[in-house]
Amino acid sequence: MLAEEIRTYSIKQLESLAADLRREIIEKVKDSGGHLSSNLGAVELTLALHKVFDFSQDKLIFDVGHQSYTHKMLTGRDLSKLREKGGVSGFPDPDESGYDAFVAGHSGTSVALGIGYCAARDLAGGTEKVVCFIGDASLGNGVALESVFASETKPNNFILVLNDNGMSISKNNSALYKTISKATAKKRYRKFNSFLSRTFKETSAFGRYLRKVKYSVKGWLNKNDFFERCGFKYIGPVNGHDISELVSVLENIKAIDKPVFLHVVTRKGMGYPAAEEDPSRYHGVGKNFTESEHSFSAALGRLLCDRAERDGRIAALTAAMKDGVGLTAFAEKFPERFFDAGISESSLVAMAAGMAKGGLRPVVCLYSTFLQRALDQIAHDVCISALPVIFCVDRAGFVGSDGKTHQGLFDLAFLRTVPGLSVFEPKDCAELADVFDFALASGKPAAIRYPNGYAKNLGGTARISETMLWETLSEGKEAYVLASGARAVARALEAKKQLSAEDGAYAEKLAVVNCRSVKPLDEAFLKKIAEKEIVCFEEGYTAGGFGSAVAEFYAKRGVCARLTLIGAENTFFAHASTEEQAQQACLTVNHLVKFIKNRNL
Amino acid sequence: MLAEEIRTYSIKQLESLAADLRREIIEKVKDSGGHLSSNLGAVELTLALHKVFDFSQDKLIFDVGHQSYTHKMLTGRDLSKLREKGGVSGFPDPDESGYDAFVAGHSGTSVALGIGYCAARDLAGGTEKVVCFIGDASLGNGVALESVFASETKPNNFILVLNDNGMSISKNNSALYKTISKATAKKRYRKFNSFLSRTFKETSAFGRYLRKVKYSVKGWLNKNDFFERCGFKYIGPVNGHDISELVSVLENIKAIDKPVFLHVVTRKGMGYPAAEEDPSRYHGVGKNFTESEHSFSAALGRLLCDRAERDGRIAALTAAMKDGVGLTAFAEKFPERFFDAGISESSLVAMAAGMAKGGLRPVVCLYSTFLQRALDQIAHDVCISALPVIFCVDRAGFVGSDGKTHQGLFDLAFLRTVPGLSVFEPKDCAELADVFDFALASGKPAAIRYPNGYAKNLGGTARISETMLWETLSEGKEAYVLASGARAVARALEAKKQLSAEDGAYAEKLAVVNCRSVKPLDEAFLKKIAEKEIVCFEEGYTAGGFGSAVAEFYAKRGVCARLTLIGAENTFFAHASTEEQAQQACLTVNHLVKFIKNRNL
Repeated sequence: MLAEEIRTYSIKQLESLAADLRREIIEKVKDSGGHLSSNLGAVELTLALHKVFDFSQDKLIFDVGHQSYTHKMLTGRDLSKLREKGGVSGFPDPDESGYDAFVAGHSGTSVALGIGYCAARDLAGGTEKVVCFIGDASLGNGVALESVFASETKPNNFILVLNDNGMSISKNNSALYKTISKATAKKRYRKFNSFLSRTFKETSAFGRYLRKVKYSVKGWLNKNDFFERCGFKYIGPVNGHDISELVSVLENIKAIDKPVFLHVVTRKGMGYPAAEEDPSRYHGVGKNFTESEHSFSAALGRLLCDRAERDGRIAALTAAMKDGVGLTAFAEKFPERFFDAGISESSLVAMAAGMAKGGLRPVVCLYSTFLQRALDQIAHDVCISALPVIFCVDRAGFVGSDGKTHQGLFDLAFLRTVPGLSVFEPKDCAELADVFDFALASGKPAAIRYPNGYAKNLGGTARISETMLWETLSEGKEAYVLASGARAVARALEAKKQLSAEDGAYAEKLAVVNCRSVKPLDEAFLKKIAEKEIVCFEEGYTAGGFGSAVAEFYAKRGVCARLTLIGAENTFFAHASTEEQAQQACLTVNHLVKFIKNRNL
Repeated sequence: MLAEEIRTYSIKQLESLAADLRREIIEKVKDSGGHLSSNLGAVELTLALHKVFDFSQDKLIFDVGHQSYTHKMLTGRDLSKLREKGGVSGFPDPDESGYDAFVAGHSGTSVALGIGYCAARDLAGGTEKVVCFIGDASLGNGVALESVFASETKPNNFILVLNDNGMSISKNNSALYKTISKATAKKRYRKFNSFLSRTFKETSAFGRYLRKVKYSVKGWLNKNDFFERCGFKYIGPVNGHDISELVSVLENIKAIDKPVFLHVVTRKGMGYPAAEEDPSRYHGVGKNFTESEHSFSAALGRLLCDRAERDGRIAALTAAMKDGVGLTAFAEKFPERFFDAGISESSLVAMAAGMAKGGLRPVVCLYSTFLQRALDQIAHDVCISALPVIFCVDRAGFVGSDGKTHQGLFDLAFLRTVPGLSVFEPKDCAELADVFDFALASGKPAAIRYPNGYAKNLGGTARISETMLWETLSEGKEAYVLASGARAVARALEAKKQLSAEDGAYAEKLAVVNCRSVKPLDEAFLKKIAEKEIVCFEEGYTAGGFGSAVAEFYAKRGVCARLTLIGAENTFFAHASTEEQAQQACLTVNHLVKFIKNRNL
C-alpha cells in the first residue's frame, strides 16, 4: 500500500509522485467524470498528510470529500472505474476502505464528526490523531460554523486543516473568507508571496532560505485570533503546493497535542491550465467534460431568463450550484435578481421567504439531496405563512455516478408532508414551463422536481390546470399506469408501446397517465378509476412516495382499490449510471412490461 | 393602539409602562404558561424599538419570537388567553397581526428573512427600516451564522439587534458568545458598569452624566471588528434595561442608512427574582409553572441515568433543551457523557455520528419539531454508515400551546423514508425502556418518538422482539384497530371499552393492537390479518404517516386490503390544548367510536 510506503519517501520522491498522481487524476476524470479542480488542488496536501500521519490508526475525516481522489489512490484504490458501477465512489466511504473514516458527500459535517469522534476516543483513552480536511467553501456552511463556534474549547489531538483555495464551488464573497484570509490578503505579504511564486520550483539553497524567511514574515503578520477564540491554535497560512513546507509544519503539529487550525492555501485546478483558469467550470464534470443542452437544468435556466424578462418579481436563488442548476445565463442577465448564498441551503430558503414577503417571486434552485437541509425552513418559514416561493428541485430520483450520498430519493416523502406545499413532477422540459407558470400563478408555495441528464420530449399537449391536474398520454379502458416523474412517464409509455406491439389488446386496455401533480393528487381522476386496476410507477422509494400518496387517498376513504405500487426498495443506491440504478431497483421498462404481463392487466 | 401612542411618550412614561408590562407578563404566564425569562428581559428594548420605529411601516423581525410578548401587548393583543385556543399565539404570527412580519418559532432565521426582505424592498425602491431582533443563543445557530457570514456586505437600512443575555436556553459556553462579548467582558468596563448598576435607578443629573461617560468609555473599548467584517457597523454594548439610553442610540441608528449591528445587554428574567436566579428553569414554563413527573421526558431521563450506570458507552446529547427532554439529572450525574451543543441540531447529529464511530452509543434527545433541522445528517452521516445512534424524539404529535411552529407532525414521514433507520413509538413510559433496550441491542440507527405531557401507563407485558414487533392489547376476531403512538393506543383502548359497554359483541370482534414499531412494520402480523377489516389510527398526518406505511405494505404486494386510515388532515394546527387539537383533527375517542359504529366494524 502506497500510504504505508510513502512515510519513508523523501520530499523529492513525494514531489515526483505528486506529478504522477496529478496526471492520473486528469486522465481518470476525463474517462469517468468527477470533481477535477478541487482534487487537483489537494494533491500535495494529501501526500504530506499521509507522509506525516498513519491513517490506519489516525483518522482522516474529509469534508464533502470531493478532494479525496489522491487519498483514494494512496490507499490502494484504482480510479479506472471511478464513479462507475463496481468502481470506486467519488466520495469517501468506509465500506470501500478502512482508511475512510466517514461517508462524506455533503458539506460542513467534518468538524462535528471529528469532535464527536474525539469525545469517544478521549473517554476510551485513545491517542490517535484526528485530522479534518475541509475546504473554505464548506467552512462557511452552517453545520461547520455551528461546530466551530459551539464551544470555546476543542479536543486535544484534533487538527482542522483548511484547504483554502479562495473560492466556493462558484464564486466566494463570504465574510468568513475575508476573516480567514485577513493575513494572506495583506498587501505586504502578497507582494512577498508573489516574488516567492516566481521561484516556486526553486529548490536551490537560496530558494529554501527564502521559504524560511517567508515563515517568519507570516508569523509576524498572522495574529488571527478568530480561531484562537474558538479553542484552536492557529497556524498558517502555508503554501499547499510546497510539500517540504507542508511536511515540516505537519511534523510540528503532530508533536503537540493541542487542537490546531492549520490554514493551507492552494490553487484549485492546480496543474491543469484550463481548470486553473476556470475552476468553477471544472468543479464537477461529466465524462469527457461534456454538458447537455437537453437537460431540465438547461431548460430551467432558459425558462427563468424568459420569465424574468417579462416579470420583474422573479428572482433566482441557489446555494453554490449556479452552473449545476442552469443559472449561469440568468446570473449574467439579471445580476440584481440572482442570489448565490454559498453552501447554505437552510438560510437560503429563509432568505427566499423574506423576499416573497417583500413582494418578489423567489425561485430556489437546489439539488434534491441538498434540499434535505432546508426542510425546516420550507415548513416553518415558507409554508406556515403560505409565501409564494417556488422550489426547483434538480437531480431528483437517481443521480447516477455521485451515488449514495447524492440520490434525490427523500424529497417526495418530506415535501408531501408539509401542509400547503404543492409538489409537481413535469414529464419533460416543455412541461416544466407549463408547470412553472401554473405554480407561479397560484401564488402559493410549490416544489417542482425533475431528474438530471438528458430529458426526452414526450409530447402531450394538455396543459395543467385546476381541473386537469393529470394528463392521460395514452388511452386505455381497463388498467391504468399512473406514472410520476419524467423517467417513469417515459418508461411507462415505452412499456405500453412494447406491450401493444406484442399484443394488440394492450393498446385498448392499458392507459398511461402523466401524474405531474403529486400534491394535490388529481382526486377527480382517482375517483373515476377507483374500480379499475391501478399501477403506480415512480423512480423513487415507495416509502412516502407518489404511490404512497395514491394508496393513502383510497385508504383514507376506506376504498378497497386494486392498486399496486412499483417503486424502489428502501435502501441506499451506490454509484452507477442512472440506468443501472433503475435496473438495480427493478424500475426499467422491462420490469414494468414483465409486471404487467404477469399480472395479466 | 399603544404602539402608535408610545411614540409620543416621554422616557418617564415608558419606564412606568415597562413596569406595568412586566407585571402583566408574569401574571399571564402564570395563568397560561409560556416563555417567562426571555420575555422579561426584553421589555425595555421592545418599548424603545416601538418608541423609535413605526412598525406599521418598518419591519420588526423576531428570531424564535419567544421574546415577543411585550410587542404583542403594544400591538393590541390581549395576553389573557395566551397560547390557549382562540387566544394569542406564543410566537409572532402575521395571521394574528400585521405588526408581525414573519412566523417565528424556530431559531436563527431572522437574519436571512431580513436580508431577503431587504432585497425585495431595495428592488422595489422601498425605504422602510428592517429590524431583526435576535437572542445570543440564536445567533450561534447555523442558519443565523450562515446568514451573517454569507456576504461581506449587508443591505442598507438593516438593523440586527442582538439581545444578549449571556445565555442560551440552558448554559452558554459558545465561542461566538466570547467573541461578541469581548468588550463587555473587559475588566475595566465591567468594574465601571458595576458602579453604574448601583445607580441604575438614578435619574438625577449626576446619573445621566454618568451614563454619558459610560458611552465614551464604551466607544474606546469596543473595537469589535468581527461584525464590521461581515458588513455591519457595530454599535454597543448598550444597557438593555435603560430606556433612555436605548432610545437615544436607536434614534441615532435610525438617522443613518448603513447596516448596523446593535449589541444590547439584558438580564434574562429581569424583574422576577426567581427567574433572574434560575432563568433556565423559567425559560419555558407550563401553567402555574408546574412540571410533570409522569411524562415521557422524565421517564427518558430516569432511563438514561439507569442505562448509563450499567453501560459506559451511553452518551446523551441535546441542543439547548436539556431540561425539556429530561436530561437535567443525567447532565449532573454523567457530565463527561453529556453534550449540549446549543441550538445546533444539524451539527449535533453529525457529532453523534462521530461518537458512534468512536465506539459510544450516543442518544440524541430533541423535540420532533427541531429534529426537522437534522434530516440531512440523519441520512447522510448516521444512516448511510448504519451507525448506532438512537434518536429520542420528544414532543411528537400535537404539542398543544406552542402551536403551529412546534407541532411534531413531520418526523414520521421523513424518518420513515431514510433507509436503515428503525422507528418506534412506545405506548407508555414502561414500554419506552423496553423499546430503548431493543434499539440499543440492535446496534443500528433508531428513532423513538413520543408525545409531551402526562403519559398514562397502559399495561401489556409482551416485550418487543424481532418476532413480536407489535402487541395485541385487546383481542378481537374481525376488525383490527392498528394504533401507533401513546395517545392513539390509549384512545383506541378507551374506544373499545366504550363500544363493548354499549354492545357486548365488540368485546369479541374488535382487536386493539399497539403498533410500537412503525419501521419495520410487523409484516407477519399484517399478512395474517390481510383479509380482515383494518383501521389505522394515529395522531399525525396521514401523509407519510403510520397508516400510510401500512397502505404501502399492502399495495406494494398488490393486496386489496379493507383498510381505512384515520389521521390528521394535512394542515397547520394552531395553539390549543393537545386534547383540543385532537378534537379539531377528529382524532378523539369519540371520533373513533363513531367511525367504528358507522362502518359497522
